[in-house]
Amino acid sequence: MTTQAVKLLLPRWLITMTPDSPVLEQHALAIEGERIAAVLPRDEAFQRYADAERVELPHHVLIPGLINAHTHSAMSLLRGVADDLALMDWLNNHIWPLERQWVSEDWTYQGSLLSAAEALRGGVTYLNDMYFFPTAMARAAVDSGIRAGVSINVIDFPTGYAANAQDYIEKGLAAYEQFKGEKLLDWTSAPHAPYTVSDETFIQLRQLAEKYDLQMHCHIHETQDEIDGSLKQYGERPLARLNKLGLLNAKMIAVHMVHLTGDEIDLIAKQGVHLVHNPSSNLKLASGVAPVKALEAAGVNTILGTDGAASNNRQDMFSEIRAAALLAKGVTGDPLTVSARTALEMATVRAAKAMGRASDLGTLEAGKLADIVAVALDSIECQPVYHADAQLVYVAGREHVTDVWVGGRQVLSNRNVLTFDTQALQGRVADIVAKMRAGR
Amino acid sequence: MTTQAVKLLLPRWLITMTPDSPVLEQHALAIEGERIAAVLPRDEAFQRYADAERVELPHHVLIPGLINAHTHSAMSLLRGVADDLALMDWLNNHIWPLERQWVSEDWTYQGSLLSAAEALRGGVTYLNDMYFFPTAMARAAVDSGIRAGVSINVIDFPTGYAANAQDYIEKGLAAYEQFKGEKLLDWTSAPHAPYTVSDETFIQLRQLAEKYDLQMHCHIHETQDEIDGSLKQYGERPLARLNKLGLLNAKMIAVHMVHLTGDEIDLIAKQGVHLVHNPSSNLKLASGVAPVKALEAAGVNTILGTDGAASNNRQDMFSEIRAAALLAKGVTGDPLTVSARTALEMATVRAAKAMGRASDLGTLEAGKLADIVAVALDSIECQPVYHADAQLVYVAGREHVTDVWVGGRQVLSNRNVLTFDTQALQGRVADIVAKMRAGR
Repeated sequence: MTTQAVKLLLPRWLITMTPDSPVLEQHALAIEGERIAAVLPRDEAFQRYADAERVELPHHVLIPGLINAHTHSAMSLLRGVADDLALMDWLNNHIWPLERQWVSEDWTYQGSLLSAAEALRGGVTYLNDMYFFPTAMARAAVDSGIRAGVSINVIDFPTGYAANAQDYIEKGLAAYEQFKGEKLLDWTSAPHAPYTVSDETFIQLRQLAEKYDLQMHCHIHETQDEIDGSLKQYGERPLARLNKLGLLNAKMIAVHMVHLTGDEIDLIAKQGVHLVHNPSSNLKLASGVAPVKALEAAGVNTILGTDGAASNNRQDMFSEIRAAALLAKGVTGDPLTVSARTALEMATVRAAKAMGRASDLGTLEAGKLADIVAVALDSIECQPVYHADAQLVYVAGREHVTDVWVGGRQVLSNRNVLTFDTQALQGRVADIVAKMRAGR
Repeated sequence: MTTQAVKLLLPRWLITMTPDSPVLEQHALAIEGERIAAVLPRDEAFQRYADAERVELPHHVLIPGLINAHTHSAMSLLRGVADDLALMDWLNNHIWPLERQWVSEDWTYQGSLLSAAEALRGGVTYLNDMYFFPTAMARAAVDSGIRAGVSINVIDFPTGYAANAQDYIEKGLAAYEQFKGEKLLDWTSAPHAPYTVSDETFIQLRQLAEKYDLQMHCHIHETQDEIDGSLKQYGERPLARLNKLGLLNAKMIAVHMVHLTGDEIDLIAKQGVHLVHNPSSNLKLASGVAPVKALEAAGVNTILGTDGAASNNRQDMFSEIRAAALLAKGVTGDPLTVSARTALEMATVRAAKAMGRASDLGTLEAGKLADIVAVALDSIECQPVYHADAQLVYVAGREHVTDVWVGGRQVLSNRNVLTFDTQALQGRVADIVAKMRAGR
């Protein structure tokens, strides 16, 4: 009997992210093909896999790949183009005109590739994306070796990408069909937001999610303005409207959710809606802070995202994990809420559940896909290490990520992206930006 | 006439941090001895300093060295020893027992050196420290080449360092005398906090600050508990008490100041008190968020600190700068408050003023001390760059700092500390931690 070559990762510490799991030492993780074959004591590993290639990670902690549950990858090309502005000024006078003028299939591909490189160098193995030109994001994911949730994105007004809801849906489905069977990709049915999508379109997208068994992905309750607008237009808050439309269930990945009543928290908890907390983006756009302590108390599956680089210029899940742990404490006065371990769960095991991938992703366990991140804790600013899990949240940063595997394939080695030429990409990004600057 | 050798730094961008200064391109900075000789257009520089050594920094932005206006450097040895606990549990059952058992001159020296290395690698050229054994911090600063505000620290109860207020003061003054003339050091008269220092001691320390022309450094209004305790014990809030004692003036560097009434904000603005905002520490200990927008409106000189590694495990001024800019927006709903440039001012020019060093530090100008940081923006996660100043705040991290000069002396090169053996220090830190672990 022949088997695929086994690779043994030998880290200093290993955190499986299974419930109540301790930080393991003297353990090994065996990768066989695209999956984890075992997590086991090191001496057992040396017996069971005597011939395996050994990868020494003597100063490193191994964790499951981080899942960025909400971003607009291509917008990295607009990183820092306009900061410190009021929301409508920022959108109307900067972001939207630039998007109208420049966004194309190639622009989206290059920006998505830029975000993929940033993600891999920051320990992120899964980008849940929402943007136009889904084939561009799909290609960027495949070419970079990162996992992605690609959006069948719909907004009820015309853009350079599509003319109307039907056009968005058709283009999205064509992309879905084109990339069917591509292992790195999941697809989401993604109505943009309650203030940009009609009831009819929402219903269509719900049916599409049911038919193709997709998760949904939607901005909800980001700002008080959104809620006020809905009250005026529909006579009810967006969540009430979406509930009537049958959208609030375990298929829904609801993004932002900054403004919530106690009843709304109970509703989404009961109906199994997943909630993506974007702490940095919500602070920067002055939207507020999602009530994470209350969400935890209600049992809502709260996870984390960076949002796009236009509203959170640093696409860094380590920053979001740390922010989630700190912010919940500071705004509630409760130092016990959102522990380091909880914040790590939000970026791993809980996010895998939200993406509908709980059986494949989110923990380091035999049988799961080998999406794995090694973080080195030997630099002087990470010393000493008392508890490797808390150290990841409160001390380490994405700069300490050294090696990343996605589906058993090594995609980052010693901070170098292995899957594509990032220098060439930088040249293409510079060209695009020069053109944008000249065209303004 | 002979002059000292001139070194020309040739960065891609240069931000002087003088009021309303643009981001300069095609400029050079000339270092002569310990001071900045000129900031000038590159072609002029090549004429004026034809023989100067040229330091090419083609992807870098130059900024003044960052000033961490509040930390307890030695506590890096307790980094991550106990997280996610309530304040009094954390202090009474973890931090204070460890300090009682272990803190010594050598422990303080090694911990301070660890923090100095972390600081230099993070673009910090000045640590305003508060801790016991000031000779240890003074030695660590001199040995690492970082600037420090060393504290004549007083707490009205006995510790392993001193027996009573008089003892603390005498030891502090002896340290001050011992290091007199050491250019890297400033000294502060540092009553620990209103809840740990008596009226009599406060007055003594005020007089000491006046006699030796020192700035003062004190924790004030960190928690609601502190205020409630003062109301009970003194019948007034700590700030009112300190005002009566003559302590609220431009000599006072007031740390935390999370809980402030409008009248208190007006009072400190009028009397020129400097305020150190510690966003991460205040969030992590669930103390709250200082009212930075209101402080800005009142004209208070608000600056930034990390606090010690026990309450903010990541001693990273880039994180604090970003947090200050994001948090003020998010908690007030005003996206225009605390711009990127304002946040940078808090960590540079404003902090220099608070330390009483406005004529020497805080900006890149001819005649000032050459405390300079180079930050490389060519890594893929920093691309593209539209505005180098906002990029520093919202995108770059301390990991992008490559080179640092303090008083014209290069102390960091390509992220390596040049002034002492950090590998040897890591060994000593490991030994100390092993001993502490064994002794518990």
